[in-house]
Amino acid sequence: MKPVYQMENSGISFFFNPESVAVVGATEEPGKISNIILRSLLRAGFKGKVYPVNPRYSSVLGMECLPSIEAIPEKADIAVFAIPAPAVPNALKNAEGKIRGAIIVGGGFAETGEAGNALEKEVREIAARAGIRIIGPNCMGIFDTASKLDTFFIPEDRIQRPGKGGLSIISQSGSFAVTAMDELAADGIGVARVVSYGNKTDVDEADCLDFLADDSETKAVAAYIESVDDGRRFIEAASRCSANKPVMAVKVGKAGAGITAARSHTGAIAGRYEIYRAAFKKAGVIELDGYEEFLAACKAFGMQGRAKGNRVMIITDGGGVGVGLSDACHALGLDVAPLPEELSAKLKSELPPYFAIGNPLDLTGSATDESFALSLQKTMSGDHYDIAIIAALWGPPALTDNLPAMLAQKPGFTEKPILICTPGGEYSRQRFKLFREVGLPVFGTPEAAVRAASVLARGARRG
Amino acid sequence: MKPVYQMENSGISFFFNPESVAVVGATEEPGKISNIILRSLLRAGFKGKVYPVNPRYSSVLGMECLPSIEAIPEKADIAVFAIPAPAVPNALKNAEGKIRGAIIVGGGFAETGEAGNALEKEVREIAARAGIRIIGPNCMGIFDTASKLDTFFIPEDRIQRPGKGGLSIISQSGSFAVTAMDELAADGIGVARVVSYGNKTDVDEADCLDFLADDSETKAVAAYIESVDDGRRFIEAASRCSANKPVMAVKVGKAGAGITAARSHTGAIAGRYEIYRAAFKKAGVIELDGYEEFLAACKAFGMQGRAKGNRVMIITDGGGVGVGLSDACHALGLDVAPLPEELSAKLKSELPPYFAIGNPLDLTGSATDESFALSLQKTMSGDHYDIAIIAALWGPPALTDNLPAMLAQKPGFTEKPILICTPGGEYSRQRFKLFREVGLPVFGTPEAAVRAASVLARGARRG
Repeated sequence: MKPVYQMENSGISFFFNPESVAVVGATEEPGKISNIILRSLLRAGFKGKVYPVNPRYSSVLGMECLPSIEAIPEKADIAVFAIPAPAVPNALKNAEGKIRGAIIVGGGFAETGEAGNALEKEVREIAARAGIRIIGPNCMGIFDTASKLDTFFIPEDRIQRPGKGGLSIISQSGSFAVTAMDELAADGIGVARVVSYGNKTDVDEADCLDFLADDSETKAVAAYIESVDDGRRFIEAASRCSANKPVMAVKVGKAGAGITAARSHTGAIAGRYEIYRAAFKKAGVIELDGYEEFLAACKAFGMQGRAKGNRVMIITDGGGVGVGLSDACHALGLDVAPLPEELSAKLKSELPPYFAIGNPLDLTGSATDESFALSLQKTMSGDHYDIAIIAALWGPPALTDNLPAMLAQKPGFTEKPILICTPGGEYSRQRFKLFREVGLPVFGTPEAAVRAASVLARGARRG
Repeated sequence: MKPVYQMENSGISFFFNPESVAVVGATEEPGKISNIILRSLLRAGFKGKVYPVNPRYSSVLGMECLPSIEAIPEKADIAVFAIPAPAVPNALKNAEGKIRGAIIVGGGFAETGEAGNALEKEVREIAARAGIRIIGPNCMGIFDTASKLDTFFIPEDRIQRPGKGGLSIISQSGSFAVTAMDELAADGIGVARVVSYGNKTDVDEADCLDFLADDSETKAVAAYIESVDDGRRFIEAASRCSANKPVMAVKVGKAGAGITAARSHTGAIAGRYEIYRAAFKKAGVIELDGYEEFLAACKAFGMQGRAKGNRVMIITDGGGVGVGLSDACHALGLDVAPLPEELSAKLKSELPPYFAIGNPLDLTGSATDESFALSLQKTMSGDHYDIAIIAALWGPPALTDNLPAMLAQKPGFTEKPILICTPGGEYSRQRFKLFREVGLPVFGTPEAAVRAASVLARGARRG
């Protein structure tokens, strides 16, 4: 018998627009993976049909529970398999003709060695014969603010979910995806789609990039990569995606212990880093260096667009942090270009004499909200600079909580990318929110702000 | 007439143990620098005598206000000059024989150009003739948890003061000192002495290091340096200090715009970075790279001691963060040495089969408080590793708030340095406090934890 969906499953877009989701292994027991997934689905507000499946229950969380996948009326677009690894092959066989895609969240497959590898191969072959696409195994699946799908099996009291935004994240590592989402939620950055594909026995980064290339919800893509198996497919998909929107990637498992660790994590053969670097370059992918740059990139492209170039204007009210920003820019190849004569003269005529007019422009402890805004507008008009970094220390007594709104981009003020650096303790940290509310990404150290500037500037090379 | 103190002012220890402090320019006006300084002194609980000085008031903040420095009965150890730059020379002349040291907080001196430079020279000459040591001008002065002196003119609602601890900070930049203090306060790291010496017309980093070398309150020193004028004196003092306790320094104004920015900030000629690097090496000073490494160093040496070497053991419950830590260790030259056979066998016999036994040691989503503690103790006993990094993601449902206490150093468990990495959003960030309370420094990114490990290991080379 020909599977119902075999002919139409070349793409994976149905994973991001499902009308129905089955949860295989559903249970009432709180804390169990399948229970958390069901709760996540309900809390996320998934609008389609949800089918709990488990022969041991007649109802779960107030929903009718089906004894088997075959009992699903008509079909389910996706089934989430939250059952032990050895039970997956049979369950998949029984799902033939009933589902288009499977998300297999559990571990115990290729990442565990030879026996697990054989089991995963069996699962892959069954799915291929049945025309079922697979995300996983050993993964978190999908968190999607557009379709309101959430298969992540970490309760929300531990891991917050971000709001709606234009950033999509794809990740081989589930813990990385989870942690990044949690950081972004806490930092007020929204997301579109997050895909954790684990051992990627079928759906991989190339499939995801191919889908995201045309996805109107997605304005930028950040990828966490331990390994790529098919370099040609990856470069094709990434090139197509990066032609439409910024694509960034961190490749981990660079050397020594990191490579070994990646293997025992998702069974990945990490390979030589230089090869990845070359592939990223060829595909127009912005290469990110580690977790901190990944976060900075998410914040930067989650709130700002590409910069036109790498010329940075620094405006500060603390000399020390201005020097620190300059050093960090220099280290990452950004150009802290001197103020042009004419601009310098204009600023000198409009600002108090005790300000240090230059780049950095140091407004000193006498800084006011207005002097920050004036300096920003004057220096960013014309074609002298591509990115502004504003370093606001909160010691100067004249600074108020109106500052963030006065620095936000608007027509006639400036529309170029602006990044905020406001290091310090409680008072500074509490002000982060005010900047985010007006769409300005905010960083706690000079280096973090400069990482973000660097990512925006690196996006320029292709843009 | 011979100044009272001329013969005994070769050292600067009296700045850190004063019996009396005058505030010249004291005022009732809230928000004014001298008013903030007076309030800071009172709030800090300074136990000695405080003399407000200002001919325009008879009392300030409920204290008798003296018309001039000459009116001080007997003497004051320190006078804080919070008056405009042009008024400083005369005020200093009148202070001859009345004070041992002056803290000149205001700007308008060498950092502003030629006229300011001349004014500063005049001040320096007057002080030298009068036997008065000077901290500043263009500085914050001293924050001292031992003597309870606080001359920092930023109100505490904006900048928190750290508690008592063993870390001392010396800084050319006032804003840097202030921001670092605020960060440390928010991060629960205590300090002993903080000195901001600005233009260092007299007291400089060498004087401070010379004092801190023998200071029993100070267990470690972190320095922020824009320039050193007398390399030989610096190397002598730093060598003496680093023979007794860890000394770390960040040198900013490394290149290009950073050098220019440093000049307009404290009048510093930043000089070639290679020269500083060589001087640090010769003096046994741990070189720090920028603000983030400075913070990591303060956290590390604020809570932990030197490591014996650079062999790092990584224990994690998230594979991705384990890989990230390995990569970051590799980038900073730390050795993530493989588990010795015997240790590996022992761990395999005591831990569940689904843990990935290696370095990193991945406890996976099944991690428990006990499995973390057991892994830490087993791997850190013997002489296989010098530093442990624990990466705790809070997704695993069995992890509880007991974890921090179970990981703290104690005899019979482990006494080697332990660093915590717990990236993520609100839930993780709220757990930082629990780790700090048991003396474990905690970091939000793999790179930050590894920076700290690197600093502790670099401390080993001399220790």
